[in-house]
Amino acid sequence: MEANKGKGDQGMQNPSGQVDRPVSFHFLESMLPKAVKRRVHALKRLQVQCANIEAKFYEEVHELERKYAALYQPLFDKRRDIVTGTVEPTDEECEWHSDRDEEEELAEEVKEKAAIEDAKKEEATPEEDPKGIPEFWLTIFKSVDMLSDMLQEHDEPILKHLKDIQVKFSEPGEPMSFTLEFHFEPNGYFNNAVLTKVYKMKSEPDPSDPFSFEGPEIIDCEGCQIDWHKGKDVTVKTIKKKQKHKGRGTVRTVTKQVPNDSFFNFFNPVKAPPDGEMDEDSEFTLATDFEIGHFFRERIVPRAVLYFTGEALEDDESFEEEELEEGEEEEQDEEGDDDDDEGDFDPKA
Amino acid sequence: MEANKGKGDQGMQNPSGQVDRPVSFHFLESMLPKAVKRRVHALKRLQVQCANIEAKFYEEVHELERKYAALYQPLFDKRRDIVTGTVEPTDEECEWHSDRDEEEELAEEVKEKAAIEDAKKEEATPEEDPKGIPEFWLTIFKSVDMLSDMLQEHDEPILKHLKDIQVKFSEPGEPMSFTLEFHFEPNGYFNNAVLTKVYKMKSEPDPSDPFSFEGPEIIDCEGCQIDWHKGKDVTVKTIKKKQKHKGRGTVRTVTKQVPNDSFFNFFNPVKAPPDGEMDEDSEFTLATDFEIGHFFRERIVPRAVLYFTGEALEDDESFEEEELEEGEEEEQDEEGDDDDDEGDFDPKA
Repeated sequence: MEANKGKGDQGMQNPSGQVDRPVSFHFLESMLPKAVKRRVHALKRLQVQCANIEAKFYEEVHELERKYAALYQPLFDKRRDIVTGTVEPTDEECEWHSDRDEEEELAEEVKEKAAIEDAKKEEATPEEDPKGIPEFWLTIFKSVDMLSDMLQEHDEPILKHLKDIQVKFSEPGEPMSFTLEFHFEPNGYFNNAVLTKVYKMKSEPDPSDPFSFEGPEIIDCEGCQIDWHKGKDVTVKTIKKKQKHKGRGTVRTVTKQVPNDSFFNFFNPVKAPPDGEMDEDSEFTLATDFEIGHFFRERIVPRAVLYFTGEALEDDESFEEEELEEGEEEEQDEEGDDDDDEGDFDPKA
Repeated sequence: MEANKGKGDQGMQNPSGQVDRPVSFHFLESMLPKAVKRRVHALKRLQVQCANIEAKFYEEVHELERKYAALYQPLFDKRRDIVTGTVEPTDEECEWHSDRDEEEELAEEVKEKAAIEDAKKEEATPEEDPKGIPEFWLTIFKSVDMLSDMLQEHDEPILKHLKDIQVKFSEPGEPMSFTLEFHFEPNGYFNNAVLTKVYKMKSEPDPSDPFSFEGPEIIDCEGCQIDWHKGKDVTVKTIKKKQKHKGRGTVRTVTKQVPNDSFFNFFNPVKAPPDGEMDEDSEFTLATDFEIGHFFRERIVPRAVLYFTGEALEDDESFEEEELEEGEEEEQDEEGDDDDDEGDFDPKA
């Protein structure tokens, strides 16, 4: 900073005439004349007041989101009814233009060839009149890396019964949170009609660190108890262990239940300890959980059909950034790059 | 997608039991049975309705930002008054705790040594009673890469007169935009008290590409005319060119004015052509301009003091991401990493 005003720039100058950034550490801030430092402290106090006003701003944004959730809901209900086959949309409701005539023709050709193949396979279980959009949500899970990472083979038959995912927002006066509701058709795996995951948020600046406040942040989450039918719990597996008696030398087989990888562990998350201190692995797992919750809320639920078709995946490169391996370059989605991936419309006209 | 339901997964399975993502191109969407595709189109129509509702949501967010801008304004006015030295804050208004006693002590030592050195230099222009916070905004420009990139040596004496930067939001019913106002003290360079930059935004989905809508987006900007005093315009320079007369062989010296690099070109931006088509360089320049406008609005103006001290720079790694060279890894700001860069408080408690 300009602690020595009038004595020339602190910053160094390079030959081009551009000025290099001065070293601006808090250390230097201490180098300011007392009178100036005092005023900087006054600005910091004002900044704390700003942070507190900002917290109220975010509360009002949350309120706005709740208000709009109610406006989207009839459309999402309609979506659910179409997906489940409860309601058949009218022709008018299905009108959709596509420029991709060539691609449609090609698709028709491939389909015809595939149909000949399928006709042979289809004798056992003909599905010529599929109801709704079969496996709508399961397809989304499989198409989106962040979700497919959680998915195991044994989860799939269960997720075929997933008929809707909804987002609910906390009421005014309640601590800020949102809830993901996974609505299932009756199925042979568990009794629950709805599985829930609540994400709790911190929506105010931390008085001991007011400047790190950047808006509401997920800080904890809570799952739900799944009422599994006997023998259907995919989150556990039974293993057999041979044990040798130390004295007698006889061997016995012991069976025990151990945790099994499954999407449904999503409803039994690691708990964040009250003091905020946990091991690195748990912290990472929890952070990933929070990302997933946020992703469901912000992207999947509002735009589900675009994940079903894959259109949204092209736009989401930035969201998947977290998953890149170290050293891997993030590809910029440039105009004209992904002609073969285009949706019905050019992403950028 | 599950075009061939009942005939096994389209997706391939790897040995771990996890399911690989099916190839979900729009091409495959065309592979769906007609009845199902029809319903997918119905969902897309619903999605367009969602996008239109979303546009209204963002209008209301803009309204909320305008409402809160009015709530922040008294604090920002106070900031300006303290920075310019118009108002001296009371002791109470300057109270600020710091844990960094050790660093304070060290700073004091260094300061004492520097003071002895300075005492010698200070005879010519003593600045023992600096007014306000001298060069507050200029220091911010020099500390923030995105801004220092625009800064030339000859801009600095002018920017010493910058006393405030304000953000104004468009009114309801107007096309969505925001304006940056750069307020200057009277100075020997130009007559304007305020230099303005307006950023115009697109806040509705493009009917021909409704799904690319991700909220309001800057699409154009407009500067202002600077009323430079004679000979003080730093955005132009005079160069001399020798010209040789073809016939006679005589040489003459011609002076001409050419553009000069300067921050003040910020107020004379490249114009986006109505049809949206421009060369790559101009497109890049404009995109950078939009980033800068967004950065002033979202980060600099709301949190100026934290850029002055440098605290905000640690948090802003993600904002500077755009400026990384290809191949350069983005450093994750981990807890405990930057102990020497800590502000008065730990960024993450």
